[in-house]
Amino acid sequence: MNYQARQQRLQQTIHAERLDGFVVTHPANLRYLCGYTGSNGLLLFLNGHRTFFTDGRYTQQAREEVQGARIVIPKGSLLPAAVERMPPRKAARIGFEADRTTVIAAAEMRKLASGKISWKPTSALIMRQRVVKDADELRLIRAAVVMGAEVFEKALDSIRAGVRESEVAGRLEFAARQAGAEGMSFETIVASGKRSALPHGRASREPIPRRGFVVVDSGVILRGYCSDMTRTVYVGRASREERKWYEAVLEAQLAGIAAVKAGKTAGEVDQAARQTLRRAKLDRFFTHSTGHGVGLEIHEPPRLGRAQQERLEPGMVVTIEPGIYIPGKGGIRIEDIVLVTANGCEVLTPVSKELIEI
Amino acid sequence: MNYQARQQRLQQTIHAERLDGFVVTHPANLRYLCGYTGSNGLLLFLNGHRTFFTDGRYTQQAREEVQGARIVIPKGSLLPAAVERMPPRKAARIGFEADRTTVIAAAEMRKLASGKISWKPTSALIMRQRVVKDADELRLIRAAVVMGAEVFEKALDSIRAGVRESEVAGRLEFAARQAGAEGMSFETIVASGKRSALPHGRASREPIPRRGFVVVDSGVILRGYCSDMTRTVYVGRASREERKWYEAVLEAQLAGIAAVKAGKTAGEVDQAARQTLRRAKLDRFFTHSTGHGVGLEIHEPPRLGRAQQERLEPGMVVTIEPGIYIPGKGGIRIEDIVLVTANGCEVLTPVSKELIEI
Repeated sequence: MNYQARQQRLQQTIHAERLDGFVVTHPANLRYLCGYTGSNGLLLFLNGHRTFFTDGRYTQQAREEVQGARIVIPKGSLLPAAVERMPPRKAARIGFEADRTTVIAAAEMRKLASGKISWKPTSALIMRQRVVKDADELRLIRAAVVMGAEVFEKALDSIRAGVRESEVAGRLEFAARQAGAEGMSFETIVASGKRSALPHGRASREPIPRRGFVVVDSGVILRGYCSDMTRTVYVGRASREERKWYEAVLEAQLAGIAAVKAGKTAGEVDQAARQTLRRAKLDRFFTHSTGHGVGLEIHEPPRLGRAQQERLEPGMVVTIEPGIYIPGKGGIRIEDIVLVTANGCEVLTPVSKELIEI
Repeated sequence: MNYQARQQRLQQTIHAERLDGFVVTHPANLRYLCGYTGSNGLLLFLNGHRTFFTDGRYTQQAREEVQGARIVIPKGSLLPAAVERMPPRKAARIGFEADRTTVIAAAEMRKLASGKISWKPTSALIMRQRVVKDADELRLIRAAVVMGAEVFEKALDSIRAGVRESEVAGRLEFAARQAGAEGMSFETIVASGKRSALPHGRASREPIPRRGFVVVDSGVILRGYCSDMTRTVYVGRASREERKWYEAVLEAQLAGIAAVKAGKTAGEVDQAARQTLRRAKLDRFFTHSTGHGVGLEIHEPPRLGRAQQERLEPGMVVTIEPGIYIPGKGGIRIEDIVLVTANGCEVLTPVSKELIEI
């Protein structure tokens, strides 16, 4: 990972925002900027230098992981130790992650620095940088997506009537561990029969019924990077109507993918998928947005939702995942991860989308 | 679950704080107050009535889960819909969870309600209620702790030299799924050999070495409630010195348990464990606090750390988990969950703490 380049780029942003320093505490931002993977840490940018603070639990881990910053293990809390290092002049403008800092924490920060420095709330400064993935990140995301696909294929073998949803999720998660995943990127969704109409139907103790859709939505974490994919299979033989529903969702998903291109707005991609379902008179069952960015976190910008004006850029990585949820009947969602390119996109998820009947 | 009693008690707090209303959005607080388990929701207390808002993804789930509140699925975001329902008088004081709301989100809230209502930051109002567990919660926590112990015992069979740490974690997690866990309460720690000196050594791809300590720290989630336990085993035959270290940690853990009693401060419990390690001249390797509360979240108050003044109350559930981490050599941690009682505590974790050599 080119942590130096990432730190330099943030340093330029700090300069451009006319800040004298910057405090990073959000774990995903810490991992992005200096490689630290622990739960408690603070990276201080000040006068062109970086200092990393953590507590005694992470002394050894910080020494092994942190790049491009001097490591300090203070006796007490991290923020007072960081403030102590700041120059005692009232004019010092120190930026902080106001989109990751609670109102209570910010009040404590102000108390701590009273008169000494001036805290400047900032929003998404680092995320703006993270939203376009660099070469190292794309390599890891590609590998995570392939791993996610492989563990899905393994779990597929366990899907049949009578097997508990949680058993399917358990096999998928165990396969992920064996493949070398750090963990799952979110709670595995296995929603069968009528439960498939729950867009976020986490795997339950319910057995898979004799017939109906089974939505499997899962992701692995590989060296910090998340995968995310959904496939919907059918246990038994789908009726003509059910097959029509499936084809409509697949058509919407392909329309979403076809709409992805650098320069397009996030809303245009959502619109492409939504209009396809509107033509099939199924859009009222499409109750969420078409997709979201993925990287060190499972939900990152851009959000591919209605009327979103953010423009896609080459190197963004997003999900395309329309779905329909028909109460009492069932639901279908199909999701790939795609890489935005100048001329369109590259679908990273290497798994067929033909309806599988089991 | 007696959601009605929980809602009434919060209603009394709202009244005591001279608030006209209260907005809850933190997921664990939503689950506690009304049973909702989704990721996006807002519970509004206003004029003695409760209204629950969520988005279209959760319509069916909210209908199945939410107790004691009218359900509204607004077209757009939840907060504007909630604000719309508030009386248009400037004096209305509406509390919000300032310890769970970011600075940016709070700024948006102010903009949204400009002049109409006055947002009042509050901290831990609901947590103060959650910190003492009710009968329903204790039943679930006991069951979660027993399940956590059972899956640990299953994973124990897979610990031997040459097996990857991630394989042990994977087996433990699969056993949890099969036992009916909703998920794991945190990333499973399996840290073997020199890695056992990392207090937060998440299971890696490293094989367990031929000899050394293996720290296994894991927890399951059962109907929302977290378990948390750590045992340290030895692969091979422990040296006399290693056995002495283990006995010192066990003695400290027992001293911590013996110090737990309603009326004692959290700091006194920490002190009891810490002093035991000081007598063994090992306290400088004890780099974290002695324990923490557990419930719907894996880390809740009280924090059993140095000089913490919070007093224990009957019905609190806390971990007791001293450990030592000797760089380059290895680490040991032993952790139980205990229920605070008037006269002491009840150890809920039903697993032996004798050193196991494998």
